[in-house]
Amino acid sequence: MRVGFIGMGLMGIPMSKNILEKGFELTVYNRTKEKTKELFDLGAKVVDSPMDLARVVDVVITMVTAGRDLELILFGDNGVVNGANEGLIVVDMSTIGPSFAKNIALKLSQKRIDFIDAPVTGSTPKAITGNLTIFIGGDEKIYEKIKSILASIGNNLQYMGPIGCGQAIKLINNHLIATSIESLAEGMLLADAMGLSRKKVSDVLKTSPAMSEFMNLKIFNFVTDDFPLLFSASNMMKDLLLANKEAKKNSIKLPMLDKIVDIYRKVIKKGLGDRDMSIIIDLLKK
Amino acid sequence: MRVGFIGMGLMGIPMSKNILEKGFELTVYNRTKEKTKELFDLGAKVVDSPMDLARVVDVVITMVTAGRDLELILFGDNGVVNGANEGLIVVDMSTIGPSFAKNIALKLSQKRIDFIDAPVTGSTPKAITGNLTIFIGGDEKIYEKIKSILASIGNNLQYMGPIGCGQAIKLINNHLIATSIESLAEGMLLADAMGLSRKKVSDVLKTSPAMSEFMNLKIFNFVTDDFPLLFSASNMMKDLLLANKEAKKNSIKLPMLDKIVDIYRKVIKKGLGDRDMSIIIDLLKK
Repeated sequence: MRVGFIGMGLMGIPMSKNILEKGFELTVYNRTKEKTKELFDLGAKVVDSPMDLARVVDVVITMVTAGRDLELILFGDNGVVNGANEGLIVVDMSTIGPSFAKNIALKLSQKRIDFIDAPVTGSTPKAITGNLTIFIGGDEKIYEKIKSILASIGNNLQYMGPIGCGQAIKLINNHLIATSIESLAEGMLLADAMGLSRKKVSDVLKTSPAMSEFMNLKIFNFVTDDFPLLFSASNMMKDLLLANKEAKKNSIKLPMLDKIVDIYRKVIKKGLGDRDMSIIIDLLKK
Repeated sequence: MRVGFIGMGLMGIPMSKNILEKGFELTVYNRTKEKTKELFDLGAKVVDSPMDLARVVDVVITMVTAGRDLELILFGDNGVVNGANEGLIVVDMSTIGPSFAKNIALKLSQKRIDFIDAPVTGSTPKAITGNLTIFIGGDEKIYEKIKSILASIGNNLQYMGPIGCGQAIKLINNHLIATSIESLAEGMLLADAMGLSRKKVSDVLKTSPAMSEFMNLKIFNFVTDDFPLLFSASNMMKDLLLANKEAKKNSIKLPMLDKIVDIYRKVIKKGLGDRDMSIIIDLLKK
């Protein structure tokens, strides 16, 4: 299967490398062309537009920031649909929310293109090692066709149901992540106040049943006061707003989600949107 | 070493059993005497007051609900201090907060009794298997003397520092637990709204880096709509209020902690205080 990958970001680059390494013929596209250099050096073909990419592949994978980027890539002037061969499958691995995914799937189906939503969780370290968790939504038969590609990127593939179901659980997952990192940040401020060293708290909490793998990935940031960018505050805010939109659309009231949206809004207002999502602790300081 | 155990609750009974099983000579006391029957049948001595208990042991372990219960047990009419032999060590494993623990330690030191704060985390299942996490505060030399007793109850012993330090990290830990279970409950409501089955979400989230061991312990409650009592909402509220008190005392503002306190206040107001802390989902239903 010939694979195309669009979006050479923090996640896209390591994901593409793993696809290439597993022996797939790979073509890549990125708006800023220089970011494709690493993949070119490794043997990937580089093209000048999503349309050109679609012409030479069987599967297009997209990994971009938001739904509007995806729309441009697919339906823009030099978009994927203009170059698509018969039987093309588009696999979007970005987080765009279930409603948007369903809308995209509908528009693609009118061009006889199949769509799978397959957002990931695990941040850059797991993208590098090929150990991402991937949540899959869409027609199960189509999923079976592209499964081997996804297996080169992730070690935990979870088929969730029809279009949008991958997105749905991703939003739930990121709500958990955001809230837990905020609580952890608050815990560190409590530790300061109560006279415990953050290093000690970090060492000990790592052994507690209260901690998740994701919390363990971030806790040391609060000890070193260094926040390596793995997942930006703005990107987290985008996902939380997608979750919030689903909640509102269905008239459910989720107080903790509202609160964490409110907190990230302040983080971004403070000019910290481009920093790692764990920078949230900066908002709590006295 | 002769051990005394006060407080035959959901945690105290299995903890006492493990102490007995490891070969320690054990004496127990409980306000409601019938709750000591199981331990009596297993070979523990039963006494009629904390004072009587103190007379025949080297170490008194207390596992009660709140600080005021502990105060009565230690300093009441038939309290521990009235029966204490020279060199008695009191080990409190309840959650009473660092300020209260320091106060208790000071009062005991005036009677030449040593004090260790050693709150636990892990709920009843881990109390039964002797796999609790224990956070220890107090003089390290005193801790060394009673370490073998604690090792019969827990498999993860974490010495944190001076008196109150065990309490301090326990409060941080329970803030994490409460917030994460609330987020998980909100995630389930989102799942309902977005058309995912709770069973599927539960199965899949269990494999996600966002999930903690504690969240995995509780998630099935949301699938079965059954909430076996392991840790009551009222007890969680007590711990959250202790954390809140420390935050206020130190003039730090913790928005997520404030929010979860607010949510548990409503849970209790709704008459659900005696239910397991995961009953929180009942508050979110439409």
